[in-house]
Amino acid sequence: MNIGYIGLGIMGKPCVLNLLKAGHQVTIWARRRESAEPLLAAGAQWADSPAALTGAVDLLITNLPDTPDVEAVLCDEAGVFGALKSGQIVADMSTISPIGARRVAVKLAEKEVKFIDCPVSGGEIGAINATLTFMVGGDAEALATIRPALEAMGKSITRVGDSGAGQVAKACNQIAVGVTVMAVAEVMKLARACDVDLAAVRAALMGGFAQSRVLDVHGQRMIDDAFPAGFKATLHLKDMNIVLDTARELGIRLPESERMTELIRELIDQGDGDLDSSAIARLIWAKN
Amino acid sequence: MNIGYIGLGIMGKPCVLNLLKAGHQVTIWARRRESAEPLLAAGAQWADSPAALTGAVDLLITNLPDTPDVEAVLCDEAGVFGALKSGQIVADMSTISPIGARRVAVKLAEKEVKFIDCPVSGGEIGAINATLTFMVGGDAEALATIRPALEAMGKSITRVGDSGAGQVAKACNQIAVGVTVMAVAEVMKLARACDVDLAAVRAALMGGFAQSRVLDVHGQRMIDDAFPAGFKATLHLKDMNIVLDTARELGIRLPESERMTELIRELIDQGDGDLDSSAIARLIWAKN
Repeated sequence: MNIGYIGLGIMGKPCVLNLLKAGHQVTIWARRRESAEPLLAAGAQWADSPAALTGAVDLLITNLPDTPDVEAVLCDEAGVFGALKSGQIVADMSTISPIGARRVAVKLAEKEVKFIDCPVSGGEIGAINATLTFMVGGDAEALATIRPALEAMGKSITRVGDSGAGQVAKACNQIAVGVTVMAVAEVMKLARACDVDLAAVRAALMGGFAQSRVLDVHGQRMIDDAFPAGFKATLHLKDMNIVLDTARELGIRLPESERMTELIRELIDQGDGDLDSSAIARLIWAKN
Repeated sequence: MNIGYIGLGIMGKPCVLNLLKAGHQVTIWARRRESAEPLLAAGAQWADSPAALTGAVDLLITNLPDTPDVEAVLCDEAGVFGALKSGQIVADMSTISPIGARRVAVKLAEKEVKFIDCPVSGGEIGAINATLTFMVGGDAEALATIRPALEAMGKSITRVGDSGAGQVAKACNQIAVGVTVMAVAEVMKLARACDVDLAAVRAALMGGFAQSRVLDVHGQRMIDDAFPAGFKATLHLKDMNIVLDTARELGIRLPESERMTELIRELIDQGDGDLDSSAIARLIWAKN
């Protein structure tokens, strides 16, 4: 496919390399051309502006920090929006608010452009190894068209529903991981207070209904009391803010997610924002 | 082995049948002999009192409702305690407080009797199919001696540590399951409010770090909004009370476990104590 890629961060760069490796033609743009040099050396094409990039491609992929970034890049008449043509597809790999994703989808429909929200889990390692998990919202036919591109970057692609549904699943994922971290931290708090071997407790629990990937992976971090990222607390906070903003707009409350968010904020406030977010276990252990 | 079994409830009865099936000699006692008839027909021996039963066996197994029951049966001079002989082993499959289990171990040591706490997970189905998971605390050599008996009833046997450690692991298990149920319920609350297909969200999350057996099994119950037990809320409340009593005695707080306990109590108060404890999801969805 003829693909444009905007957002050459920690996740974006390895994704472009994997797209090139799979034989796709990839055009890129960045604020500073130097930062794109390794990708140009690997075969990517250069465009002088987002608008120039947009004109040349069948599929435009964005991978940006947050909701306002995505809306600014895609919906601004002076930039990409003005250059979009009927029949093009835009896929956004960023983690943004579900409501924002729906707004973008409606806006791009004005140009008969299909918008796919496809946030990922799997982190930098998943991006490098092309093992990302895509949670997809949007038109099923458009997804079928771009599926080869997603397959070049990931190994699991689940269409959850219409526009925004991929972001809903991602928000749900961040709740599930965050609150399960609290569960495992409390398990370890009791086991520590009872002076019982933490590794043996984890092993015993892995055999039954308490089994989870969080118990497996983050549980081991808690046993080691070592939390190198992983998934940085600052990034988890950004995602939890999306969760809580979305809940507010929907008029519902998510008390567990609120508590998880408070703990992450506290962790960051004490200077540990670069640790894996499961380091909130230390706060849970320290509080009485 | 020559085994005595006290506590012929929903769990105890199938366990005795599986011990007999594996070729062990099993002596039983019950308040009402009629309730033991099917086991006697299957080959169990009858004893007229707990003391009479205790005199005849190498291993005494108890499977009783709660901590006071176990202490009353095992530590009362007039009953089992007076009849215990040096070298016998007592294994308690009940879920009781870790601190109570340690007390019993100390008491039985007066008679040179080894005490093994080996609570289980897997429920009635696991007991019937001999697929229980044993979490074991106590002397490793004594465990090796009784292992064939446990293997007749279960498929996974993990020694967690010294006396009480099995009960610590069981308490940890109930925390992990309970709080992860809250996590999954909040995930489903957001997905419902966003009007997204719940089954698709569950499928998307099962592929990544949010994966858990609770998401798998209890998540499906939430999708169906149907909560036949399962693990009855009344029983989960009993276990969470053990968790919180233990925390209190240790001087620590477990806020997530406290909230889970409040929700279960509320569920029972509204008359739903016989539902699977994951029915607390309904309360989480209903609250704003």
